[in-house]
Amino acid sequence: MILSGARFSVDYILAGDAAEARRKADDICLEQTVEFPADLLPAGVIRDSIIGRRESLEEVGADLYRARISFAVETSAFDLVQLLNVVFGNISIKQGIKAESLILPEELARSFRGPRFGGAGLRSLVNVPRRPLTCTALKPMGLSAAELADQAYAFALGGIDIVKDDHGISNQPFSPFSERLPRCVEAVDRANRETGARSIYMANVTGPADSVRARAIEAKAAGAGALLVCPLLVGIDAMRALADDDGVGLPIMAHPSFAGSFVTSTENGMDHGLLFGDLMRLAGADATVFPSFGGRFSFSREECARIARACAAKRPGLKPIFPAPGGGMTADLVKDMREVYGRDFVLLIGAGLHRLGPDLTESSARFREMLEAL
Amino acid sequence: MILSGARFSVDYILAGDAAEARRKADDICLEQTVEFPADLLPAGVIRDSIIGRRESLEEVGADLYRARISFAVETSAFDLVQLLNVVFGNISIKQGIKAESLILPEELARSFRGPRFGGAGLRSLVNVPRRPLTCTALKPMGLSAAELADQAYAFALGGIDIVKDDHGISNQPFSPFSERLPRCVEAVDRANRETGARSIYMANVTGPADSVRARAIEAKAAGAGALLVCPLLVGIDAMRALADDDGVGLPIMAHPSFAGSFVTSTENGMDHGLLFGDLMRLAGADATVFPSFGGRFSFSREECARIARACAAKRPGLKPIFPAPGGGMTADLVKDMREVYGRDFVLLIGAGLHRLGPDLTESSARFREMLEAL
Repeated sequence: MILSGARFSVDYILAGDAAEARRKADDICLEQTVEFPADLLPAGVIRDSIIGRRESLEEVGADLYRARISFAVETSAFDLVQLLNVVFGNISIKQGIKAESLILPEELARSFRGPRFGGAGLRSLVNVPRRPLTCTALKPMGLSAAELADQAYAFALGGIDIVKDDHGISNQPFSPFSERLPRCVEAVDRANRETGARSIYMANVTGPADSVRARAIEAKAAGAGALLVCPLLVGIDAMRALADDDGVGLPIMAHPSFAGSFVTSTENGMDHGLLFGDLMRLAGADATVFPSFGGRFSFSREECARIARACAAKRPGLKPIFPAPGGGMTADLVKDMREVYGRDFVLLIGAGLHRLGPDLTESSARFREMLEAL
Repeated sequence: MILSGARFSVDYILAGDAAEARRKADDICLEQTVEFPADLLPAGVIRDSIIGRRESLEEVGADLYRARISFAVETSAFDLVQLLNVVFGNISIKQGIKAESLILPEELARSFRGPRFGGAGLRSLVNVPRRPLTCTALKPMGLSAAELADQAYAFALGGIDIVKDDHGISNQPFSPFSERLPRCVEAVDRANRETGARSIYMANVTGPADSVRARAIEAKAAGAGALLVCPLLVGIDAMRALADDDGVGLPIMAHPSFAGSFVTSTENGMDHGLLFGDLMRLAGADATVFPSFGGRFSFSREECARIARACAAKRPGLKPIFPAPGGGMTADLVKDMREVYGRDFVLLIGAGLHRLGPDLTESSARFREMLEAL
């Protein structure tokens, strides 16, 4: 077996004193690759290069260390699933280990096509050159397909750029996917004909593993403008497969449903920027939804900023994507959001629009004017 | 819209005082369904029946409450992905909420076929009527397909019932799936011809979303006896799809890689029994791997017992499955494991076998004798 010598690196934050951190780092090197006691490993390339290599270990706080560990690119099988398996598979089960960041060399990065459109592509699609894009969700669950389509029309008429299914609206009997899809596409198209704008309907294709692709193809054929996917529910790589699929070819927005357990602990899981920024981008999302500071969830301003930085950072071969902060956003928060996210983001506003009044078109227009005035 | 009236229930453990627990419970009712403020909801069926309903709230410890919340079965779209979305989608992101158990009424349970073989089916397949089944992993990563096949032969000759790929061995250049598969099948078959036993090779089909099914079909065609799947890496429902697929029709063992973040926190995530027991069973696993007490991970005896109970509990329409405790198991632990797991389980031993000596056949035989002697 000959290895190329190229290695990818992961930074982990390890809880414990210096000795414990070193023990954890060395454990990661084995657990994530050979899963075998070091003293029983055959001498040679496995012991020298297949097991992870501790590149550095530095103190970053009280009983807190950062370890950089590198792995041979070949351990990843050059696919996202096995890459995640090496980055955070078994050690997800151990206490006091947080994956902070991932650095891929060119030899591995080129295995990933990443976002098909990126934030800039999304901009062109909806024909909005400068300001943040606006997005709202069709809801609440329980409305009929016709009622949701009426909402879609009202939002698009008021100038919302992206009108998406709420992430919880999938294929329930009250608004089956195949009935909702053509109605919402038609509603947004009709509004566009009146406004001259290019708003899009984003269909939620989160569903059974053996239906995701079929729904995406159906969405494309019906004229939907984009897809909503909950990658932790359908599998992160199922989203990657959709993004790579030339038969689909629609922008994708990733939604964080079921992803929370990776970030609710300070000592375990993954960094916000790694999960919602880098990994979603690597997995082909063009925009990544997360609960913004100031809303009804508890991400801090700094955690949100890390996600935004990971969306925009230079990554070889991967288009920058747009953060899509949401989760209880209100008109009052917009100025603060502009400070953190700049202008390259998707502003997700849901119930906040309904709060502005019963006429959704008027509320949408007011919201957009406010955004443009900043 | 007419609802059937049937509801499924989820028990959540909520951190906080009585007022906070009640607030969290009411928040779950909205967040997991309509994601909409209660005061803006239209009167009628959405407000009455689509939103979750707090059925009970009881104190279970200091600043710890259990809330039972019921949801209309229709919210689940009668599929596993959307069911998980309702059970633990957005609220996975909120602090101090742990999903503890899930109760499905017949109206929803019949949507899930569950395990195709179950523990009893696995027993018949390997022709072991009474004792715990034995399983070991081909490792370490970095060995060639020929070397792994030699190991498979040695293990099967020594009487190991299930010889599986290590979960980290997928499709790396050192032992590509399509090369490893026929070699390992042949090796185990050859051993069976010598021993008269019916050991099986279990192929790891964890891989890219668009390859999982193809690898499973390939494994079936090549004569593999079972499949290993990491459901949190490929998507929980991707495992369900494999189990339901009549074109595959092989037993499935679920592996916990990448699943740890759901259980590493005491206040957030999911209960061990719910995730590794009930959900894996609902998603079609015939055996469910988890790190046992006493090994190199940190699950307690009670957490492991909860998983085992969930595997065996009466669930309408779902075959009982086998827990597959592993993760640093040694011969010394076997007696203790028998006490917790009884005899209906798969004993996973990896490096522990290598520790017994360089002759893997002899070590396997010694291990099995020890197990039979209990």
